[in-house]
Amino acid sequence: MLLDLAGVIYDGDTLIPGSADAIGRLRAAGLAVRFVSNTTRSPRPALVKQLAGFGIAVADHELVTPAAAAIAWLRQAGRSPFLVVHPNLRPDFEGMEFDGKPAVVVGDAGEAFDYAVLNAAFRQLMDGAELVALAVNRMFKDRDGLPSMDAGAFVAALEFASGVKATVIGKPAPAFFNAALEDMGCGPHEVAMVGDDAESDVAGALKAGLGAALLVRTGKYRPGDETRFEPAPTAVVDDLAAAADWLLSRRG
Amino acid sequence: MLLDLAGVIYDGDTLIPGSADAIGRLRAAGLAVRFVSNTTRSPRPALVKQLAGFGIAVADHELVTPAAAAIAWLRQAGRSPFLVVHPNLRPDFEGMEFDGKPAVVVGDAGEAFDYAVLNAAFRQLMDGAELVALAVNRMFKDRDGLPSMDAGAFVAALEFASGVKATVIGKPAPAFFNAALEDMGCGPHEVAMVGDDAESDVAGALKAGLGAALLVRTGKYRPGDETRFEPAPTAVVDDLAAAADWLLSRRG
Repeated sequence: MLLDLAGVIYDGDTLIPGSADAIGRLRAAGLAVRFVSNTTRSPRPALVKQLAGFGIAVADHELVTPAAAAIAWLRQAGRSPFLVVHPNLRPDFEGMEFDGKPAVVVGDAGEAFDYAVLNAAFRQLMDGAELVALAVNRMFKDRDGLPSMDAGAFVAALEFASGVKATVIGKPAPAFFNAALEDMGCGPHEVAMVGDDAESDVAGALKAGLGAALLVRTGKYRPGDETRFEPAPTAVVDDLAAAADWLLSRRG
Repeated sequence: MLLDLAGVIYDGDTLIPGSADAIGRLRAAGLAVRFVSNTTRSPRPALVKQLAGFGIAVADHELVTPAAAAIAWLRQAGRSPFLVVHPNLRPDFEGMEFDGKPAVVVGDAGEAFDYAVLNAAFRQLMDGAELVALAVNRMFKDRDGLPSMDAGAFVAALEFASGVKATVIGKPAPAFFNAALEDMGCGPHEVAMVGDDAESDVAGALKAGLGAALLVRTGKYRPGDETRFEPAPTAVVDDLAAAADWLLSRRG
């Protein structure tokens, strides 16, 4: 089972009721569980620590993040990153200097998105840099409970201005789901995804060939999301606890 | 003849050689000349003053700007503006308070584009506001001679995040070209447009039915622009002086 983090397990600083217990029940039933998050405001150790604070023990390899996948991409392509990311994520990219042209790397930079940094990235693209999107989510549920613009909007801005098409690293890129599948040693049809984003979590997982994808009515979910994107969710359930019930009742 | 301003008549603070003389020759030949600019960093009186400083006398009605057209749109629609525009342009919209839902109005805000203002605009859109784009240009030639991101990129970001499609006020909206035609009392086939933007000036004018559209190799022009958008320019010429020669040699 693949689980999204923000909006599925927790909302801001608050655990969504029943989530930690649901993960415990899935694991007790012998199911492999991995965490696939497009969150790019925190480095992986901070996410592992945050989950531990909720009583959810997660090994480093069980958590798949776009930053780690992007670093692998940059190494393989021999491209130095030009970072448009959250300040918290910058240390992950330290010491990445290669000979090739740079690649503009865009994550959810939050308040760090401003005209000066976006325009500097745009000029890199006009000079031949590649564009790498850690995520292309439209929005996330912010700490004040309202939706806020996510990285995808700024990727769209840079694509529009420069004409350069982004390489997407996080969900819904099939390679991103596959990284979690490989770590579990499972085929895609054996795996279900649970997320609050009908587009990148749910439609993305089904397009990547996963056996099922459940949309939860927590996090950024808004009524009508289930019919907004293709393919539609396998099922829509109230929360992660209900998703665990759904899966465990269908085992075998 | 319709003329773009920035990149055709002047570049930053500098008159493009031969431009003022070309306008004089067109007027001396009895041709009506109007100025259609997507520039949204300066209100109309400032543009008229800037042209006067270059020795180009322009009457207020001869200059068509997106801000004036947007104000007419807001009055007709009964929508109060939520402004994402350059601070210089804000006074134009003062006292525009209507009963209807707000409309997010996006211009080239320059350094005023930041996460806080864009996210506030995004939340208005999520609450049912309309989206009005003063312009959707990809880039402009900045004062340092390099290309910079224009309003269109930020319109694309808001459209992507919210799913709301923008109403475009400036070029290439046919209504914008038509405002200049009406002021001249000309039919579209009698009129030629001159611009440095192959997309909004040139392809836009031809789509609006104008008789000809000339692309100049000044301003933001880059080699290859003439084949980048459909329809292709009627002709590609070095600058406004050459555009005037082209037109005057074909009269009658």
